Amino acid sequence: MKTHKVTFYPDNRVAEVADGESVLTAAIAADVHITATCGGDGSCGKCRVIVDDGAIVTKQTPKISEEDAAKGYVLSCLTSVTSDLKILVPPETRLGIVPEETEEAVAYGRMMTAAEEAESLDAITLDPPVSRLLLKMTPPTLDDNASDTVRLTRALRQAGVTEPVIFKPVALKETAAACREAEWEVTATVRRDPEQALVTMLQPGDQTSRAVALAIDVGTTTVVAKLIDLETKEAVAETSAYNRQISCGEDVISRIVFAQRPGGQARLRELVVDTINEALRRLLAAADMTQDNIVAVYAAGNTIMQHLLLGLNPKYLREEPYIPTATTFPWVRARELGLKLGPRTNLYPLPCVASYLGADIVAGVVAAGIPASEKLSLYIDVGTNGEMVLGNNEYLVSCSCSAGPAFEGGGVKYGMRATFGAIEEVLVDPETYEPTIKTVGGKRPIGICGSGLIDALAEMFEAGVIDAKGKINVDLPTDRTRIGPSGPEYALAAAGDNGADRDIVITEADIDNLMRAKAAVFAAVMVLLDSVSVSLKDIDRFYIAGSFGRHLDAARAVTIGLLPDLPADKFFYIGNGSLWGAHISAVSRDKRAEIAATAARMTYLDLSTNNKFMDGYVAALFLPHTDATLFPSVKTGARA
Amino acid sequence: MKTHKVTFYPDNRVAEVADGESVLTAAIAADVHITATCGGDGSCGKCRVIVDDGAIVTKQTPKISEEDAAKGYVLSCLTSVTSDLKILVPPETRLGIVPEETEEAVAYGRMMTAAEEAESLDAITLDPPVSRLLLKMTPPTLDDNASDTVRLTRALRQAGVTEPVIFKPVALKETAAACREAEWEVTATVRRDPEQALVTMLQPGDQTSRAVALAIDVGTTTVVAKLIDLETKEAVAETSAYNRQISCGEDVISRIVFAQRPGGQARLRELVVDTINEALRRLLAAADMTQDNIVAVYAAGNTIMQHLLLGLNPKYLREEPYIPTATTFPWVRARELGLKLGPRTNLYPLPCVASYLGADIVAGVVAAGIPASEKLSLYIDVGTNGEMVLGNNEYLVSCSCSAGPAFEGGGVKYGMRATFGAIEEVLVDPETYEPTIKTVGGKRPIGICGSGLIDALAEMFEAGVIDAKGKINVDLPTDRTRIGPSGPEYALAAAGDNGADRDIVITEADIDNLMRAKAAVFAAVMVLLDSVSVSLKDIDRFYIAGSFGRHLDAARAVTIGLLPDLPADKFFYIGNGSLWGAHISAVSRDKRAEIAATAARMTYLDLSTNNKFMDGYVAALFLPHTDATLFPSVKTGARA
Repeated sequence: MKTHKVTFYPDNRVAEVADGESVLTAAIAADVHITATCGGDGSCGKCRVIVDDGAIVTKQTPKISEEDAAKGYVLSCLTSVTSDLKILVPPETRLGIVPEETEEAVAYGRMMTAAEEAESLDAITLDPPVSRLLLKMTPPTLDDNASDTVRLTRALRQAGVTEPVIFKPVALKETAAACREAEWEVTATVRRDPEQALVTMLQPGDQTSRAVALAIDVGTTTVVAKLIDLETKEAVAETSAYNRQISCGEDVISRIVFAQRPGGQARLRELVVDTINEALRRLLAAADMTQDNIVAVYAAGNTIMQHLLLGLNPKYLREEPYIPTATTFPWVRARELGLKLGPRTNLYPLPCVASYLGADIVAGVVAAGIPASEKLSLYIDVGTNGEMVLGNNEYLVSCSCSAGPAFEGGGVKYGMRATFGAIEEVLVDPETYEPTIKTVGGKRPIGICGSGLIDALAEMFEAGVIDAKGKINVDLPTDRTRIGPSGPEYALAAAGDNGADRDIVITEADIDNLMRAKAAVFAAVMVLLDSVSVSLKDIDRFYIAGSFGRHLDAARAVTIGLLPDLPADKFFYIGNGSLWGAHISAVSRDKRAEIAATAARMTYLDLSTNNKFMDGYVAALFLPHTDATLFPSVKTGARA
Repeated sequence: MKTHKVTFYPDNRVAEVADGESVLTAAIAADVHITATCGGDGSCGKCRVIVDDGAIVTKQTPKISEEDAAKGYVLSCLTSVTSDLKILVPPETRLGIVPEETEEAVAYGRMMTAAEEAESLDAITLDPPVSRLLLKMTPPTLDDNASDTVRLTRALRQAGVTEPVIFKPVALKETAAACREAEWEVTATVRRDPEQALVTMLQPGDQTSRAVALAIDVGTTTVVAKLIDLETKEAVAETSAYNRQISCGEDVISRIVFAQRPGGQARLRELVVDTINEALRRLLAAADMTQDNIVAVYAAGNTIMQHLLLGLNPKYLREEPYIPTATTFPWVRARELGLKLGPRTNLYPLPCVASYLGADIVAGVVAAGIPASEKLSLYIDVGTNGEMVLGNNEYLVSCSCSAGPAFEGGGVKYGMRATFGAIEEVLVDPETYEPTIKTVGGKRPIGICGSGLIDALAEMFEAGVIDAKGKINVDLPTDRTRIGPSGPEYALAAAGDNGADRDIVITEADIDNLMRAKAAVFAAVMVLLDSVSVSLKDIDRFYIAGSFGRHLDAARAVTIGLLPDLPADKFFYIGNGSLWGAHISAVSRDKRAEIAATAARMTYLDLSTNNKFMDGYVAALFLPHTDATLFPSVKTGARA
């Protein structure tokens, strides 16, 4: 078989691939993580690379302008390798580094503060599902000649363990020596499930110090992980990284499609495991620990992420009637999944509700305190899907809608994730129609992220650049609005502005995608309220979760009709609810049980055949909404 | 390192060993199973082999007569290999084949018949701890969109499974495909423990037929195994083999000692696993099945056998205060132990009570129905240890005493196991003092087994060949009694009698060993009775278990004072109670639970520091006993 060497710059990584393979495949093989929102079918246009040297066969695509094609730009998924190649991966295509979350004042609503997080942690009694317990026993005598495991079980009872005690065979093998080496002082690693307490390890003497749990939010886009000290309950290190599965498609649907390729499912698991292992390496280095310090792993993620992590085929999640293999999961050996942890370390996948309502949401809802409160709350997490839960201590209803990739920068010509160089804030002067932009990290603008798009849409609408149907007025006295190669467009940045090396525009097609996304989310909120016969005014707290929430200006989201028109004091940004739920699971058996109980009692509404949702969606394809009475505070053509 | 080739005949097996290694080590390496009661320290004199060709270095030993030494006999444990060797293993040294158990009429007491076994099986409701269940489900729809595992759990509930249902990660991976391949008809392999039901395998369609369990009695001497049909509850095949650990010592103490050598513990596990694997191979061939038919394994054995099988160091079972690692055990993966079974097949080690009161006894006590009955029963199993249980549905007390190896042919000059050629029955004519002997299988006599020794002792006592203290009267008018090289002796067979190729004698030293063994067993019985303030006459049933029991003539055992002087209708021979207990565990969750509950409620008396036992032992060093009122039916010098 003829093969070629493909070298990717600036990473200088190399893959040897068969003649005719795509450059995207080569990039995946070379571990070069490039953006490919659609999973590699040429539709998203994100996997732009520059062929620097070598022979290729590529398909023409409207996603690459003639000008760019002349510079050597191609879509890596549409380009076949036919010789050794040198490939440049431009910044907008690279995954890059996840920007650090900063505690910022928000314009509208309230961000959970670190102090509040600490307070909510204080309210939780330390009682981890998996912990190291120091057991002190009296040595056996002829009169007290119980077996070692009976003696250990007695000591566990004294330590408050009430469940039936089972010893793992491997722990049984070390029992006799462990008991006798340090004069009947033994550290037992014990996993307490509702059904039984499982002793997984026995070590002589006191080995209880510096025991930590690994809590992970396995996001479709970003994996965030923390080490949790099992004495203080607090995080001792935190890190995040883009989920390397992004090379195989940006949203969950493209991941499911990729999983159906030969070896695809295994590859996806490998990629997310690589991501977690890299995060783990950084965490252990930061905390000056080894894998031996980690007693358990708690992983929250959406249902597709949980399936892929566990090696379950997500195929049927995408086919009607959308059935997951499981929504509750057993403990699994972390090492069997490929995680670089000890052979005894187990991973608990937090429970999901349905194919499109995952553990990330359940965890966040419990972290927000909704299932324990009398107050009616709505919890929303918007990415390529909008997932939401409405309820309190009496009931919980949930649904999800496909928002499309617009809020994560997909389906938008210059869209990108909220990484360095993404335009995240936009002002449009209603007099001159000139934009003012702010980028993530203050870097040279290279695209627009979700919050930037919402800002832009709200500002353009209020400034009169677009009308209530999202049509751009190209007759305004400014060259910012114009007819571009893909129709009407508005230039947020011209080449040279703030150092931009190309025009960054919003097209009418982009606006259409955004309108469809916001309409779906708003319609879903209304269906959820309607399902339990409550109205917007009954909502006491409106929680916005996720990194989307963290960057979002809720006032702007209200202006475009994405979020309902509620007063600022009802909006709460709770950050990474999924990770927070994994965190509290790691320190509290009660919280872990509450999350399981919450998943079990949550009702899920399937919107795919829901007529009210369809009607609501059509009615919401307007700025802010065809029913203006729903948005009394939004005034067209004037700053809110 | 210099090595030599050692070839063993008649098996024609070869081992390559280092210069200076013992011939016994070479035999173990060559998988030649030879008798070595003491585990290889030169004390038992059983590992006699003939050096046919080659140079050796051997130690002189009184265990080999000068005459035999001249013929090339050496003890393999005391002989170093210093060149290539050819070694002949004579019949008395070979392990041989376990003679088939036959249903024989017994002289005194009653043997459990096959019909009674079938009847007791009929009384048990089929409800195996591990079984294959056919689950028929309705396919999911948008209105009934529960996950696959929820759907399976529902079907399990309909099938009567009430415990919390947990799916093994490996079963989770096959769930989606298994459900859909045969239109929502799935065979689930389910392990039902009191705490939870564990789904270990999912197969599409109906795979429930021909599911069997493997029940094993892991004896110190003999391993007996059955395949149990999980529909009929009956055994479909049975086989037995000597436990290959015998090469490393015949009794549990020498096994524990061997386990402390470098690699010794692992070697012992390997040997018993080899024995089981060979039994398994024969069973599968006999039943025309494969390992896939086996859904679970149930293993009963004494506490040392259970420890060795599970890879637990038995060291502390032998050191005061005699503490086992565990007396209840978790399920273990059969394959992890080395058994040639599928990766999902688990093994359940039946529970023990104390270091010297094992699962074999607990299983047998439940199989005999003692814990459920109002009647007072005594259950006894005699080997190198005498283990006994006294009680009923209200209490159960137990103890064990070291009987020494005499009853299994050890510590006796011509002693051997009850294999082909062993003298098992003896009559002594009180007029002529001439013996009449019967051997196992009617073969040429090569030694004496336990039942033969008891017969001989009783007959010699009743004929006046020995007195109540066990002293041989060498003044009788017969050349059967005489002063031999080791002192007074009685010749059961002279060279030439029945084809014997050597004189087979009982020495006064042999009789001493037997007297000590029978005294210990009887004293233990009396201590047990005394501990709950009952007397011999209160015993309703006296169960004799084990292969020793099967060959024993209880009337003879009464004559020598080994067993108490009870009427014949109180003696019941129940055969392999241990195996029967494993069998009923395999077909009934209730029986498995009853065995666990029985182990938990059984009181164990340690006799090692018991003064009453010491006194009773001394009083019993007499034929039949110093207190003749305990044995009213035994008359000295006259046939009973």
